[in-house]
Amino acid sequence: MTVDLYLRKGADRRLRGGHLWIYSNEIDTAVNGLGQFQAGDLVSVRATDGKLLGSAYMEPQSLICARLYAPGEQLPLNAELFQRRLYEALAIREAAFDKPYYRLVYGDSDLLPGLVIDRFGDYLVVQLNNSGIERYGEAVVEALKNTFNPTGILLRGDSRSRRESGLDEEIEVVFGEVPESVELEENGVRFLAPVHGGQKTGWFYDHRMARARLAPWVAGKSVLDVYSYIGGWGIQAAAFGAAEVCCLDSSALALEGAQANAALNGVADRFNTRQGSAPETMKHMIDEGLGYDVVILDPPAFIQRRKDIKKGITAYRRINELGLRLLRPGGLLVAGSCSMHLARADLISAMQQAAVRAGCRLRVVEQGAQGPDHPVHPAIPETEYLKAVFAVRS
Amino acid sequence: MTVDLYLRKGADRRLRGGHLWIYSNEIDTAVNGLGQFQAGDLVSVRATDGKLLGSAYMEPQSLICARLYAPGEQLPLNAELFQRRLYEALAIREAAFDKPYYRLVYGDSDLLPGLVIDRFGDYLVVQLNNSGIERYGEAVVEALKNTFNPTGILLRGDSRSRRESGLDEEIEVVFGEVPESVELEENGVRFLAPVHGGQKTGWFYDHRMARARLAPWVAGKSVLDVYSYIGGWGIQAAAFGAAEVCCLDSSALALEGAQANAALNGVADRFNTRQGSAPETMKHMIDEGLGYDVVILDPPAFIQRRKDIKKGITAYRRINELGLRLLRPGGLLVAGSCSMHLARADLISAMQQAAVRAGCRLRVVEQGAQGPDHPVHPAIPETEYLKAVFAVRS
Repeated sequence: MTVDLYLRKGADRRLRGGHLWIYSNEIDTAVNGLGQFQAGDLVSVRATDGKLLGSAYMEPQSLICARLYAPGEQLPLNAELFQRRLYEALAIREAAFDKPYYRLVYGDSDLLPGLVIDRFGDYLVVQLNNSGIERYGEAVVEALKNTFNPTGILLRGDSRSRRESGLDEEIEVVFGEVPESVELEENGVRFLAPVHGGQKTGWFYDHRMARARLAPWVAGKSVLDVYSYIGGWGIQAAAFGAAEVCCLDSSALALEGAQANAALNGVADRFNTRQGSAPETMKHMIDEGLGYDVVILDPPAFIQRRKDIKKGITAYRRINELGLRLLRPGGLLVAGSCSMHLARADLISAMQQAAVRAGCRLRVVEQGAQGPDHPVHPAIPETEYLKAVFAVRS
Repeated sequence: MTVDLYLRKGADRRLRGGHLWIYSNEIDTAVNGLGQFQAGDLVSVRATDGKLLGSAYMEPQSLICARLYAPGEQLPLNAELFQRRLYEALAIREAAFDKPYYRLVYGDSDLLPGLVIDRFGDYLVVQLNNSGIERYGEAVVEALKNTFNPTGILLRGDSRSRRESGLDEEIEVVFGEVPESVELEENGVRFLAPVHGGQKTGWFYDHRMARARLAPWVAGKSVLDVYSYIGGWGIQAAAFGAAEVCCLDSSALALEGAQANAALNGVADRFNTRQGSAPETMKHMIDEGLGYDVVILDPPAFIQRRKDIKKGITAYRRINELGLRLLRPGGLLVAGSCSMHLARADLISAMQQAAVRAGCRLRVVEQGAQGPDHPVHPAIPETEYLKAVFAVRS
């Protein structure tokens, strides 16, 4: 039997609307003190009238002190539940994609708060992103073994949210074997992703739908991929027929990976790299008189917290201005943002401000968003973070 | 020489930011009274310091009393300018699409305020949507003849904005010959569009990118296309491999067109129609116990004016609830909206409310927006109106 967690009057409303988060000030502390809970304790969440709202796990030290994993139901959080959720998530990915390379589990949207799993064929990379789900790592691994019979499972403990929660940051193979790099295919293009040492889980599946849309725009063109990491955009552009692709990143290791991915796809002869800080290197390239037909900007999140929105927008505007100064008239600017706090309209507005400063005009021709392997939970706007805006300059 | 139109202090700011509209209360009436202008008169728009902001045509009876067609430049509005703009617009469409079927000109976004042109191969359908651009119909036709050597040009005078401006609502072949229906191809699927008598220009190219994304979701499935018109979504679903498609529309004529389009693509054996008001017919179908794997809702704009937002959101919520009640678990809901006043977040929120009422959960798996032939002007949010949200129910 799990403990009941009673909410204050009115605090059930958001949950009845489909949301999954319970804030610490929504608990009826006359009934339950948060002090009685450990991270990961399971509770039956109840409205003041005693009505069951669902099952949650506790994260008593956090602002979001409990997260529903079974709305409207009283269910234990165990391998069986994980397995059921995995099959449901898998059905969507298999409907959308031909091959087993995708984000398999995307937290709240897949009713598995705090859990992220990327699939690379027979390899699975897992993130347990808070202290509550942390306790269920073994059950997750068991469910994954039962469902996928994988060759290896890697636990990446070095996420930002774990660091901020004070959890250990180990990277650990928890089942089978996982090589340093694993192969994946995205939009028909092959990549090697450094799952142990690379950024996040080693790969960013989130922009895949937008990357697929490069095809009509890059054939025969020169392409600059800024903040390229291991070449997700750039190598796909080359594979889609770009005449020449330059990947720019501050990390020499990332660029080595990009170079290897170019070779893997037989496009190394049309591929080069440039190492350095993106804004500074773009300034040098402007001074050198360089110009491209397509410029792609896919920076890390410039806005991590709500209070950074204004400063962040300025940063987006700046790199877009630099990108536009490297873009030939008639060319295509692809501006990405993975900042959840940046509204799409504000990104478009920053691009427009950049265009005014660069003395050109823009037409937004396509807009990319999260794909089916990063579903948006329609009651939780925070699950939507990704933008890719394609704009033609004139 | 054109007349100067001086703005009030500060009213130049939005235009310097790239916007194209001048409101009647922004005119410095100490210098120019609006009374001196006729619709379509050309002016050089100037800031208080006399600096040129660009060339505009007047619409003195409207709230937006002038529209820039040449920001920063002093240019006449004639066939030569139209032709230059047509080539610029064409370059983007030709980059994006293999075949000559698309919206060729989309008003402000293509720097041709008030002008809309849809291309159906050698046929062009033109809308002159306000009293200012109305004066330049002949120059537009001349430019189109020079640029495309078309077989026929049809002027559709029956747009809502013309009606509201009190302009005549004639539908007229202004050059060559235009048959009742013309053929087009969208995402590899063929259609006959009734350009003389159908809705708007006879066809809605705006959802083409979203329709293309039906492909992975419909193969082998049963599909209901609600507000189908002549089958844009439904016939494409059938052509992409749906097992069975039902088009629902209130217009018998539209459904005849849909049936003809099914035959044109050799899918008539998997196609049927149902005539009636969408909400009422969906209620009947629920009572009949019908269920589908995919339900598509692409209603007309429920929100025409800002004041109708609240009522409109309720209408969207209602049809989404009905759609969800006809959707099998695991199925896909495609919710469209062409209401400019409906924010994408509000559509998603209406879908979520519908899901709560229908007792199911949703994952948003894809989001469709205007394609390259309906470019968004990044300084004019009003140019963005189209949403298509794909959500899987569980």
